[in-house]
Amino acid sequence: MKRSHRVGAICQILTDAPEKIFSLNYFCEKFNAAKSSISEDINAAKEAVQISESGYIETISGALGGVRYISHISREKAKSVQESLCKQLKEKDRILGGGFLYTSDIMYNPATVKGMAQIFARRFRKAGADYIATIETKGIPVALMTAHLLNLPVIVVRRETKISEGATVSINYFPGSSERLQKMSISKRAAAPGSSALIIDDFMRGGGSIKGIAEILSEVEIRVVGTGVAIANIEPKKKKVSDYVPIVYLGNVDEGKKSVDATPNFQIF
Amino acid sequence: MKRSHRVGAICQILTDAPEKIFSLNYFCEKFNAAKSSISEDINAAKEAVQISESGYIETISGALGGVRYISHISREKAKSVQESLCKQLKEKDRILGGGFLYTSDIMYNPATVKGMAQIFARRFRKAGADYIATIETKGIPVALMTAHLLNLPVIVVRRETKISEGATVSINYFPGSSERLQKMSISKRAAAPGSSALIIDDFMRGGGSIKGIAEILSEVEIRVVGTGVAIANIEPKKKKVSDYVPIVYLGNVDEGKKSVDATPNFQIF
Repeated sequence: MKRSHRVGAICQILTDAPEKIFSLNYFCEKFNAAKSSISEDINAAKEAVQISESGYIETISGALGGVRYISHISREKAKSVQESLCKQLKEKDRILGGGFLYTSDIMYNPATVKGMAQIFARRFRKAGADYIATIETKGIPVALMTAHLLNLPVIVVRRETKISEGATVSINYFPGSSERLQKMSISKRAAAPGSSALIIDDFMRGGGSIKGIAEILSEVEIRVVGTGVAIANIEPKKKKVSDYVPIVYLGNVDEGKKSVDATPNFQIF
Repeated sequence: MKRSHRVGAICQILTDAPEKIFSLNYFCEKFNAAKSSISEDINAAKEAVQISESGYIETISGALGGVRYISHISREKAKSVQESLCKQLKEKDRILGGGFLYTSDIMYNPATVKGMAQIFARRFRKAGADYIATIETKGIPVALMTAHLLNLPVIVVRRETKISEGATVSINYFPGSSERLQKMSISKRAAAPGSSALIIDDFMRGGGSIKGIAEILSEVEIRVVGTGVAIANIEPKKKKVSDYVPIVYLGNVDEGKKSVDATPNFQIF
Protein backbone atom coordinates (compact mmCIF):
# COMPACT_ATOMS: atom_id res chain seq x y z
CA MET A 1 0.00 0.00 0.00
CA LYS A 2 1.31 3.42 -0.97
CA ARG A 3 1.93 6.15 1.59
CA SER A 4 -0.63 8.46 -0.03
CA HIS A 5 -3.29 5.74 0.31
CA ARG A 6 -2.55 5.23 3.98
CA VAL A 7 -2.51 8.99 4.64
CA GLY A 8 -5.81 9.40 2.79
CA ALA A 9 -7.42 6.54 4.72
CA ILE A 10 -6.19 7.96 8.06
CA CYS A 11 -7.64 11.37 7.18
CA GLN A 12 -10.99 9.82 6.25
CA ILE A 13 -11.25 7.53 9.29
CA LEU A 14 -10.37 10.30 11.75
CA THR A 15 -12.58 12.96 10.10
CA ASP A 16 -15.50 10.54 10.19
CA ALA A 17 -15.33 10.18 13.99
CA PRO A 18 -14.35 13.48 15.64
CA GLU A 19 -12.79 13.24 19.13
CA LYS A 20 -12.58 9.46 18.98
CA ILE A 21 -9.15 8.16 19.94
CA PHE A 22 -7.59 5.61 17.58
CA SER A 23 -4.47 3.79 18.72
CA LEU A 24 -1.44 3.52 16.44
CA ASN A 25 -1.95 -0.25 16.58
CA TYR A 26 -5.37 0.16 15.00
CA PHE A 27 -3.74 1.59 11.89
CA CYS A 28 -0.79 -0.83 11.99
CA GLU A 29 -3.24 -3.75 11.84
CA LYS A 30 -5.55 -2.13 9.32
CA PHE A 31 -2.70 -1.32 6.93
CA ASN A 32 -0.44 -4.20 7.88
CA ALA A 33 2.39 -1.72 8.40
CA ALA A 34 5.11 -1.07 10.99
CA LYS A 35 4.65 1.46 13.77
CA SER A 36 7.45 3.67 12.44
CA SER A 37 5.75 3.82 9.09
CA ILE A 38 2.34 4.65 10.63
CA SER A 39 3.97 7.39 12.70
CA GLU A 40 5.22 9.03 9.53
CA ASP A 41 1.79 8.61 7.92
CA ILE A 42 0.14 10.32 10.86
CA ASN A 43 2.56 13.23 10.63
CA ALA A 44 1.65 13.58 6.96
CA ALA A 45 -2.06 13.33 7.84
CA LYS A 46 -1.59 16.12 10.40
CA GLU A 47 -0.15 18.39 7.75
CA ALA A 48 -2.83 17.33 5.25
CA VAL A 49 -5.82 18.23 7.42
CA GLN A 50 -4.37 21.64 8.23
CA ILE A 51 -4.83 22.73 4.64
CA SER A 52 -8.62 23.01 4.89
CA GLU A 53 -8.55 24.63 8.36
CA SER A 54 -11.65 22.65 9.31
CA GLY A 55 -9.94 20.38 11.79
CA TYR A 56 -6.65 19.13 13.18
CA ILE A 57 -5.18 15.85 14.37
CA GLU A 58 -3.89 15.61 17.92
CA THR A 59 -1.60 12.95 19.40
CA ILE A 60 -2.37 11.71 22.90
CA SER A 61 0.53 9.98 24.63
CA GLY A 62 0.34 7.26 27.26
CA ALA A 63 -1.11 3.77 27.51
CA LEU A 64 -4.58 4.86 26.35
CA GLY A 65 -3.04 7.17 23.78
CA GLY A 66 -3.37 7.46 20.05
CA VAL A 67 -4.62 10.09 17.66
CA ARG A 68 -7.87 11.91 17.29
CA TYR A 69 -9.45 14.43 14.96
CA ILE A 70 -10.70 17.68 16.40
CA SER A 71 -13.24 19.75 14.52
CA HIS A 72 -12.20 23.33 13.90
CA ILE A 73 -13.51 26.35 12.08
CA SER A 74 -11.39 29.33 11.07
CA ARG A 75 -12.48 32.83 12.11
CA GLU A 76 -12.98 33.65 8.46
CA LYS A 77 -15.21 30.61 7.86
CA ALA A 78 -17.12 31.23 11.10
CA LYS A 79 -17.73 34.80 9.98
CA SER A 80 -19.13 33.57 6.69
CA VAL A 81 -21.44 31.14 8.55
CA GLN A 82 -22.62 34.04 10.73
CA GLU A 83 -23.09 36.39 7.80
CA SER A 84 -24.97 33.78 5.81
CA LEU A 85 -27.25 33.16 8.80
CA CYS A 86 -27.93 36.92 9.11
CA LYS A 87 -28.63 37.14 5.41
CA GLN A 88 -31.14 34.29 5.64
CA LEU A 89 -32.85 35.84 8.67
CA LYS A 90 -33.27 39.11 6.75
CA GLU A 91 -35.29 37.46 3.99
CA LYS A 92 -38.62 39.30 3.95
CA ASP A 93 -40.84 36.26 3.58
CA ARG A 94 -39.71 34.81 6.92
CA ILE A 95 -41.75 37.35 8.83
CA LEU A 96 -44.73 35.74 10.54
CA GLY A 97 -47.39 37.43 12.63
CA GLY A 98 -46.44 38.80 16.06
CA GLY A 99 -42.83 39.52 15.17
CA PHE A 100 -42.00 35.82 14.81
CA LEU A 101 -39.65 34.56 12.12
CA TYR A 102 -39.87 31.25 10.30
CA THR A 103 -36.52 29.53 10.89
CA SER A 104 -37.29 25.80 10.59
CA ASP A 105 -35.71 25.58 7.13
CA ILE A 106 -32.48 26.96 8.64
CA MET A 107 -32.54 24.82 11.79
CA TYR A 108 -33.40 21.62 9.85
CA ASN A 109 -30.82 22.02 7.11
CA PRO A 110 -27.83 19.77 7.88
CA ALA A 111 -25.35 22.04 6.04
CA THR A 112 -26.38 25.17 7.96
CA VAL A 113 -26.60 23.23 11.21
CA LYS A 114 -23.09 21.87 10.60
CA GLY A 115 -21.64 25.38 10.34
CA MET A 116 -23.31 26.48 13.56
CA ALA A 117 -22.22 23.29 15.32
CA GLN A 118 -18.61 23.85 14.22
CA ILE A 119 -18.74 27.29 15.83
CA PHE A 120 -20.16 25.88 19.08
CA ALA A 121 -17.67 22.99 19.06
CA ARG A 122 -14.73 25.38 18.72
CA ARG A 123 -16.11 27.79 21.34
CA PHE A 124 -17.00 25.19 23.96
CA ARG A 125 -14.63 22.29 23.34
CA LYS A 126 -12.62 23.05 26.46
CA ALA A 127 -15.63 23.69 28.71
CA GLY A 128 -15.41 20.11 29.99
CA ALA A 129 -19.00 19.07 29.21
CA ASP A 130 -20.07 15.43 29.55
CA TYR A 131 -23.37 16.04 27.73
CA ILE A 132 -25.04 18.45 25.32
CA ALA A 133 -28.45 19.47 26.69
CA THR A 134 -31.30 20.99 24.72
CA ILE A 135 -35.08 21.29 24.85
CA GLU A 136 -37.38 19.92 22.17
CA THR A 137 -37.84 20.59 19.27
CA LYS A 138 -36.06 23.03 17.00
CA GLY A 139 -32.74 23.05 18.88
CA ILE A 140 -32.26 19.28 18.61
CA PRO A 141 -30.47 19.26 15.22
CA VAL A 142 -27.82 21.86 16.15
CA ALA A 143 -27.40 20.21 19.58
CA LEU A 144 -26.96 16.80 17.97
CA MET A 145 -24.44 18.04 15.40
CA THR A 146 -22.44 19.80 18.13
CA ALA A 147 -22.60 16.54 20.11
CA HIS A 148 -21.34 14.64 17.06
CA LEU A 149 -18.36 17.00 16.70
CA LEU A 150 -17.56 16.80 20.41
CA ASN A 151 -18.42 13.07 20.66
CA LEU A 152 -20.86 13.58 23.55
CA PRO A 153 -24.35 12.21 24.23
CA VAL A 154 -27.39 14.49 24.08
CA ILE A 155 -29.98 15.19 26.77
CA VAL A 156 -33.35 16.30 25.40
CA VAL A 157 -35.58 18.06 27.90
CA ARG A 158 -39.23 17.39 27.04
CA ARG A 159 -42.23 19.71 27.20
CA GLU A 160 -44.51 16.91 28.32
CA THR A 161 -43.96 13.83 30.44
CA LYS A 162 -43.80 10.73 28.27
CA ILE A 163 -44.20 7.15 29.47
CA SER A 164 -41.16 6.17 27.41
CA GLU A 165 -38.94 8.49 29.49
CA GLY A 166 -39.44 6.42 32.67
CA ALA A 167 -39.31 8.30 35.97
CA THR A 168 -39.01 12.02 35.30
CA VAL A 169 -38.36 15.25 37.17
CA SER A 170 -40.55 18.18 36.17
CA ILE A 171 -40.47 21.91 36.80
CA ASN A 172 -42.75 24.81 35.97
CA TYR A 173 -41.19 27.92 34.52
CA PHE A 174 -42.05 31.23 32.91
CA PRO A 175 -40.85 31.18 29.31
CA GLY A 176 -40.81 34.96 29.29
CA SER A 177 -42.50 35.38 25.92
CA SER A 178 -45.85 34.92 27.68
CA GLU A 179 -47.01 35.10 31.25
CA ARG A 180 -48.30 31.56 31.02
CA LEU A 181 -46.51 29.08 33.25
CA GLN A 182 -45.01 26.19 31.25
CA LYS A 183 -43.75 22.78 32.17
CA MET A 184 -40.58 20.93 31.26
CA SER A 185 -39.48 17.47 32.27
CA ILE A 186 -36.33 15.37 32.18
CA SER A 187 -35.84 11.65 32.50
CA LYS A 188 -34.03 10.68 35.69
CA ARG A 189 -31.98 8.36 33.49
CA ALA A 190 -30.94 11.11 31.09
CA ALA A 191 -27.56 11.73 32.68
CA ALA A 192 -25.31 10.55 35.50
CA PRO A 193 -25.66 12.80 38.58
CA GLY A 194 -22.54 14.84 39.22
CA SER A 195 -21.70 15.36 35.56
CA SER A 196 -21.79 18.53 33.51
CA ALA A 197 -23.62 19.75 30.43
CA LEU A 198 -23.37 22.36 27.71
CA ILE A 199 -26.77 23.84 26.80
CA ILE A 200 -27.34 24.35 23.06
CA ASP A 201 -30.55 25.82 21.68
CA ASP A 202 -31.78 27.44 18.50
CA PHE A 203 -33.28 30.64 19.88
CA MET A 204 -33.38 32.77 22.99
CA ARG A 205 -35.55 35.78 23.73
CA GLY A 206 -35.83 36.49 27.44
CA GLY A 207 -33.83 33.47 28.52
CA GLY A 208 -36.73 31.83 30.38
CA SER A 209 -36.34 28.46 28.67
CA ILE A 210 -32.57 28.44 29.09
CA LYS A 211 -32.96 29.31 32.77
CA GLY A 212 -35.52 26.50 33.02
CA ILE A 213 -33.13 23.99 31.41
CA ALA A 214 -30.38 25.02 33.85
CA GLU A 215 -32.82 24.63 36.73
CA ILE A 216 -34.08 21.21 35.72
CA LEU A 217 -30.50 20.04 35.11
CA SER A 218 -29.56 21.14 38.60
CA GLU A 219 -32.51 19.10 39.91
CA VAL A 220 -30.84 15.97 38.51
CA GLU A 221 -27.43 17.19 39.72
CA ILE A 222 -26.03 18.26 36.37
CA ARG A 223 -23.86 21.34 36.34
CA VAL A 224 -24.07 23.75 33.37
CA VAL A 225 -20.65 24.63 31.95
CA GLY A 226 -21.78 26.84 29.06
CA THR A 227 -24.72 27.95 26.93
CA GLY A 228 -24.76 28.46 23.18
CA VAL A 229 -27.75 29.75 21.23
CA ALA A 230 -27.91 30.06 17.48
CA ILE A 231 -30.01 33.23 17.55
CA ALA A 232 -30.40 35.62 20.49
CA ASN A 233 -33.04 38.32 20.34
CA ILE A 234 -31.58 41.70 21.34
CA GLU A 235 -34.80 42.61 23.21
CA PRO A 236 -35.42 42.32 26.10
CA LYS A 237 -31.97 43.62 27.05
CA LYS A 238 -32.38 42.20 30.52
CA LYS A 239 -32.28 38.39 30.15
CA LYS A 240 -33.04 35.79 32.77
CA VAL A 241 -29.58 34.33 32.19
CA SER A 242 -26.34 36.28 31.84
CA ASP A 243 -23.83 33.73 30.58
CA TYR A 244 -24.69 32.74 27.01
CA VAL A 245 -22.99 32.79 23.61
CA PRO A 246 -25.11 33.61 20.54
CA ILE A 247 -23.96 33.04 16.98
CA VAL A 248 -26.04 35.99 15.78
CA TYR A 249 -28.19 38.69 17.34
CA LEU A 250 -31.69 39.30 16.05
CA GLY A 251 -32.79 42.93 16.23
CA ASN A 252 -35.99 44.62 15.24
CA VAL A 253 -38.50 42.66 13.15
CA ASP A 254 -40.72 45.23 11.44
CA GLU A 255 -43.85 43.60 10.03
CA GLY A 256 -44.98 46.80 8.32
CA LYS A 257 -41.72 47.64 6.58
CA LYS A 258 -40.92 43.95 6.13
CA SER A 259 -37.46 44.47 7.51
CA VAL A 260 -35.37 42.36 9.88
CA ASP A 261 -32.19 43.39 11.70
CA ALA A 262 -29.60 40.70 12.33
CA THR A 263 -25.90 41.01 13.18
CA PRO A 264 -23.14 38.47 13.84
CA ASN A 265 -21.77 38.13 17.36
CA PHE A 266 -18.25 39.37 16.71
CA GLN A 267 -17.04 38.17 20.12
CA ILE A 268 -17.83 34.55 19.42
CA PHE A 269 -14.28 33.26 20.04
CA MET B 1 2.95 20.23 -1.34
CA LYS B 2 3.51 16.48 -1.32
CA ARG B 3 1.09 14.09 -2.99
CA SER B 4 0.26 12.37 0.31
CA HIS B 5 -0.73 15.76 1.80
CA ARG B 6 -3.03 16.55 -1.10
CA VAL B 7 -4.59 13.07 -1.02
CA GLY B 8 -5.12 13.33 2.74
CA ALA B 9 -6.71 16.77 2.41
CA ILE B 10 -9.01 15.58 -0.39
CA CYS B 11 -10.12 12.61 1.74
CA GLN B 12 -10.83 14.90 4.71
CA ILE B 13 -12.69 17.56 2.73
CA LEU B 14 -14.89 15.04 0.90
CA THR B 15 -15.61 12.92 4.02
CA ASP B 16 -16.64 16.04 5.90
CA ALA B 17 -19.39 16.87 3.38
CA PRO B 18 -21.07 13.70 2.07
CA GLU B 19 -22.84 13.97 -1.33
CA LYS B 20 -21.51 17.50 -1.93
CA ILE B 21 -19.96 17.89 -5.37
CA PHE B 22 -16.52 19.53 -5.48
CA SER B 23 -15.15 20.54 -8.84
CA LEU B 24 -11.61 19.61 -9.84
CA ASN B 25 -10.94 23.34 -10.08
CA TYR B 26 -11.75 23.71 -6.39
CA PHE B 27 -8.81 21.45 -5.55
CA CYS B 28 -6.56 22.95 -8.24
CA GLU B 29 -6.98 26.37 -6.64
CA LYS B 30 -6.78 25.13 -3.07
CA PHE B 31 -3.54 23.24 -3.69
CA ASN B 32 -2.20 25.45 -6.45
CA ALA B 33 -1.73 22.38 -8.63
CA ALA B 34 -2.37 21.36 -12.23
CA LYS B 35 -5.51 19.48 -13.24
CA SER B 36 -3.54 16.40 -14.28
CA SER B 37 -1.93 16.29 -10.89
CA ILE B 38 -5.26 16.66 -9.07
CA SER B 39 -6.74 13.88 -11.22
CA GLU B 40 -4.04 11.53 -10.03
CA ASP B 41 -4.59 12.68 -6.43
CA ILE B 42 -8.28 11.93 -6.71
CA ASN B 43 -7.57 8.45 -8.02
CA ALA B 44 -5.33 7.86 -5.04
CA ALA B 45 -8.04 9.27 -2.72
CA LYS B 46 -10.55 6.85 -4.27
CA GLU B 47 -8.32 3.91 -3.44
CA ALA B 48 -7.59 5.32 0.01
CA VAL B 49 -11.20 5.63 1.15
CA GLN B 50 -11.98 2.08 -0.01
CA ILE B 51 -9.76 0.69 2.72
CA SER B 52 -12.17 1.52 5.54
CA GLU B 53 -15.30 0.45 3.58
CA SER B 54 -17.23 3.34 5.13
CA GLY B 55 -17.56 5.38 1.97
CA TYR B 56 -16.43 5.83 -1.61
CA ILE B 57 -15.59 8.69 -3.94
CA GLU B 58 -17.54 9.06 -7.16
CA THR B 59 -16.65 11.12 -10.22
CA ILE B 60 -19.46 13.01 -11.94
CA SER B 61 -18.70 14.07 -15.48
CA GLY B 62 -20.06 17.07 -17.36
CA ALA B 63 -20.09 20.83 -16.86
CA LEU B 64 -21.44 20.61 -13.32
CA GLY B 65 -19.25 17.64 -12.60
CA GLY B 66 -16.60 16.93 -10.04
CA VAL B 67 -16.19 14.45 -7.23
CA ARG B 68 -18.25 13.59 -4.20
CA TYR B 69 -18.04 11.33 -1.19
CA ILE B 70 -20.80 8.80 -0.65
CA SER B 71 -21.35 7.28 2.76
CA HIS B 72 -21.31 3.51 2.84
CA ILE B 73 -21.47 0.75 5.39
CA SER B 74 -20.35 -2.81 4.76
CA ARG B 75 -22.77 -5.68 5.46
CA GLU B 76 -20.44 -6.84 8.19
CA LYS B 77 -20.35 -3.42 9.87
CA ALA B 78 -24.13 -3.00 9.47
CA LYS B 79 -24.61 -6.38 11.14
CA SER B 80 -22.48 -5.29 14.07
CA VAL B 81 -24.54 -2.05 14.37
CA GLN B 82 -27.73 -4.16 14.37
CA GLU B 83 -26.38 -6.67 16.86
CA SER B 84 -25.14 -3.96 19.18
CA LEU B 85 -28.58 -2.30 19.04
CA CYS B 86 -30.27 -5.61 19.90
CA LYS B 87 -27.84 -6.17 22.75
CA GLN B 88 -28.62 -2.72 24.15
CA LEU B 89 -32.39 -3.28 23.86
CA LYS B 90 -32.06 -6.53 25.81
CA GLU B 91 -30.56 -4.78 28.85
CA LYS B 92 -32.95 -5.59 31.73
CA ASP B 93 -33.03 -2.13 33.26
CA ARG B 94 -34.57 -0.62 30.10
CA ILE B 95 -37.93 -2.18 30.87
CA LEU B 96 -40.47 0.43 31.95
CA GLY B 97 -44.06 -0.15 32.97
CA GLY B 98 -46.59 -1.22 30.31
CA GLY B 99 -44.05 -3.03 28.17
CA PHE B 100 -42.27 0.19 27.20
CA LEU B 101 -38.51 0.34 26.84
CA TYR B 102 -36.27 3.29 27.67
CA THR B 103 -34.37 4.06 24.46
CA SER B 104 -33.51 7.76 24.73
CA ASP B 105 -29.87 7.04 25.59
CA ILE B 106 -29.62 5.05 22.33
CA MET B 107 -31.50 7.55 20.17
CA TYR B 108 -29.58 10.55 21.57
CA ASN B 109 -26.10 9.06 21.29
CA PRO B 110 -24.37 10.46 18.18
CA ALA B 111 -22.20 7.35 17.71
CA THR B 112 -25.17 4.93 17.77
CA VAL B 113 -27.26 7.29 15.67
CA LYS B 114 -24.45 7.50 13.11
CA GLY B 115 -24.42 3.72 12.64
CA MET B 116 -28.18 3.61 12.12
CA ALA B 117 -28.02 6.58 9.74
CA GLN B 118 -25.28 4.87 7.69
CA ILE B 119 -27.59 1.88 7.28
CA PHE B 120 -30.52 4.08 6.19
CA ALA B 121 -28.29 6.10 3.87
CA ARG B 122 -27.05 2.95 2.13
CA ARG B 123 -30.54 1.43 1.97
CA PHE B 124 -32.35 4.53 0.65
CA ARG B 125 -29.70 6.50 -1.22
CA LYS B 126 -31.22 5.67 -4.58
CA ALA B 127 -34.84 6.23 -3.52
CA GLY B 128 -34.71 9.73 -4.98
CA ALA B 129 -35.83 11.64 -1.87
CA ASP B 130 -35.65 15.43 -1.75
CA TYR B 131 -36.26 15.53 2.03
CA ILE B 132 -36.02 13.37 5.11
CA ALA B 133 -39.28 13.57 7.09
CA THR B 134 -39.79 12.66 10.72
CA ILE B 135 -42.09 13.46 13.64
CA GLU B 136 -40.90 15.02 16.88
CA THR B 137 -39.10 14.08 19.12
CA LYS B 138 -37.01 10.95 19.45
CA GLY B 139 -36.62 10.28 15.73
CA ILE B 140 -35.07 13.68 14.98
CA PRO B 141 -31.43 12.72 15.67
CA VAL B 142 -31.41 9.65 13.39
CA ALA B 143 -33.37 11.56 10.74
CA LEU B 144 -30.89 14.45 10.90
CA MET B 145 -27.84 12.20 10.70
CA THR B 146 -29.34 10.35 7.71
CA ALA B 147 -30.05 13.76 6.16
CA HIS B 148 -26.43 14.78 6.78
CA LEU B 149 -25.13 11.66 5.02
CA LEU B 150 -27.53 12.14 2.09
CA ASN B 151 -27.13 15.95 2.08
CA LEU B 152 -30.90 16.55 2.28
CA PRO B 153 -32.99 18.93 4.39
CA VAL B 154 -35.24 17.62 7.16
CA ILE B 155 -38.99 18.07 7.62
CA VAL B 156 -40.13 17.77 11.24
CA VAL B 157 -43.84 17.09 11.69
CA ARG B 158 -45.03 18.62 14.97
CA ARG B 159 -47.51 17.28 17.53
CA GLU B 160 -48.85 20.75 18.23
CA THR B 161 -49.32 23.81 16.07
CA LYS B 162 -46.66 26.40 16.84
CA ILE B 163 -46.80 30.07 15.92
CA SER B 164 -43.21 29.85 14.66
CA GLU B 165 -44.25 27.33 12.01
CA GLY B 166 -46.40 29.88 10.14
CA ALA B 167 -49.44 28.53 8.30
CA THR B 168 -49.81 24.83 8.97
CA VAL B 169 -51.81 21.86 7.77
CA SER B 170 -53.08 19.53 10.50
CA ILE B 171 -54.60 16.07 10.57
CA ASN B 172 -56.05 13.83 13.26
CA TYR B 173 -54.93 10.23 13.37
CA PHE B 174 -55.08 7.10 15.51
CA PRO B 175 -51.59 6.31 16.76
CA GLY B 176 -52.62 2.70 17.26
CA SER B 177 -51.09 2.32 20.70
CA SER B 178 -54.22 3.94 22.13
CA GLU B 179 -57.69 4.61 20.88
CA ARG B 180 -57.23 8.29 21.56
CA LEU B 181 -57.25 10.46 18.46
CA GLN B 182 -54.05 12.50 18.12
CA LYS B 183 -53.06 15.51 16.10
CA MET B 184 -50.05 16.24 13.94
CA SER B 185 -49.25 19.35 11.96
CA ILE B 186 -46.81 20.44 9.27
CA SER B 187 -45.74 23.89 8.18
CA LYS B 188 -46.94 24.77 4.69
CA ARG B 189 -43.41 26.07 4.10
CA ALA B 190 -41.74 22.81 5.15
CA ALA B 191 -41.26 21.51 1.62
CA ALA B 192 -41.84 22.39 -2.01
CA PRO B 193 -45.06 20.79 -3.32
CA GLY B 194 -44.38 18.06 -5.85
CA SER B 195 -41.22 16.82 -4.18
CA SER B 196 -40.57 13.54 -2.40
CA ALA B 197 -39.55 12.47 1.07
CA LEU B 198 -38.05 9.54 2.90
CA ILE B 199 -39.67 8.95 6.32
CA ILE B 200 -37.22 8.10 9.13
CA ASP B 201 -38.35 7.43 12.69
CA ASP B 202 -37.03 5.79 15.83
CA PHE B 203 -39.85 3.38 16.59
CA MET B 204 -42.94 1.81 15.06
CA ARG B 205 -45.57 -0.32 16.72
CA GLY B 206 -48.82 -0.40 14.75
CA GLY B 207 -47.69 2.06 12.12
CA GLY B 208 -50.30 4.69 12.99
CA SER B 209 -47.79 7.54 13.27
CA ILE B 210 -45.99 6.56 10.07
CA LYS B 211 -49.34 6.36 8.25
CA GLY B 212 -50.16 9.78 9.70
CA ILE B 213 -46.86 11.26 8.47
CA ALA B 214 -47.51 9.86 4.98
CA GLU B 215 -51.01 11.32 5.06
CA ILE B 216 -49.95 14.78 6.19
CA LEU B 217 -47.15 14.80 3.61
CA SER B 218 -49.64 13.99 0.89
CA GLU B 219 -51.75 16.95 2.10
CA VAL B 220 -48.81 19.24 1.21
CA GLU B 221 -48.18 17.30 -2.01
CA ILE B 222 -45.10 15.41 -0.91
CA ARG B 223 -44.75 11.85 -2.12
CA VAL B 224 -43.24 9.21 0.19
CA VAL B 225 -40.46 7.21 -1.48
CA GLY B 226 -39.48 5.02 1.47
CA THR B 227 -39.78 4.51 5.22
CA GLY B 228 -37.03 3.50 7.62
CA VAL B 229 -37.55 2.84 11.32
CA ALA B 230 -34.81 2.07 13.79
CA ILE B 231 -36.94 -0.34 15.84
CA ALA B 232 -40.13 -2.08 14.67
CA ASN B 233 -42.26 -3.93 17.19
CA ILE B 234 -43.19 -7.39 15.90
CA GLU B 235 -46.70 -7.10 17.39
CA PRO B 236 -49.20 -6.26 16.05
CA LYS B 237 -48.36 -8.30 12.97
CA LYS B 238 -50.90 -6.35 10.97
CA LYS B 239 -49.48 -2.83 10.59
CA LYS B 240 -51.20 0.23 9.21
CA VAL B 241 -48.40 0.57 6.65
CA SER B 242 -46.86 -2.24 4.63
CA ASP B 243 -43.76 -0.72 3.11
CA TYR B 244 -41.17 -0.04 5.83
CA VAL B 245 -37.60 -1.05 6.60
CA PRO B 246 -36.65 -1.67 10.22
CA ILE B 247 -33.05 -1.96 11.44
CA VAL B 248 -34.12 -4.34 14.21
CA TYR B 249 -37.31 -6.08 15.30
CA LEU B 250 -38.45 -5.85 18.89
CA GLY B 251 -40.25 -8.94 20.14
CA ASN B 252 -41.73 -9.80 23.49
CA VAL B 253 -40.96 -7.54 26.46
CA ASP B 254 -41.62 -9.59 29.59
CA GLU B 255 -41.80 -7.37 32.65
CA GLY B 256 -42.02 -10.30 35.06
CA LYS B 257 -39.08 -12.28 33.68
CA LYS B 258 -37.22 -9.08 32.84
CA SER B 259 -36.50 -10.33 29.35
CA VAL B 260 -36.58 -8.59 25.97
CA ASP B 261 -36.51 -10.20 22.54
CA ALA B 262 -34.78 -8.29 19.74
CA THR B 263 -33.45 -9.51 16.39
CA PRO B 264 -31.69 -7.77 13.48
CA ASN B 265 -33.56 -7.33 10.22
CA PHE B 266 -31.42 -9.58 8.06
CA GLN B 267 -33.06 -8.32 4.86
CA ILE B 268 -31.94 -4.74 5.38
CA PHE B 269 -30.07 -4.44 2.06
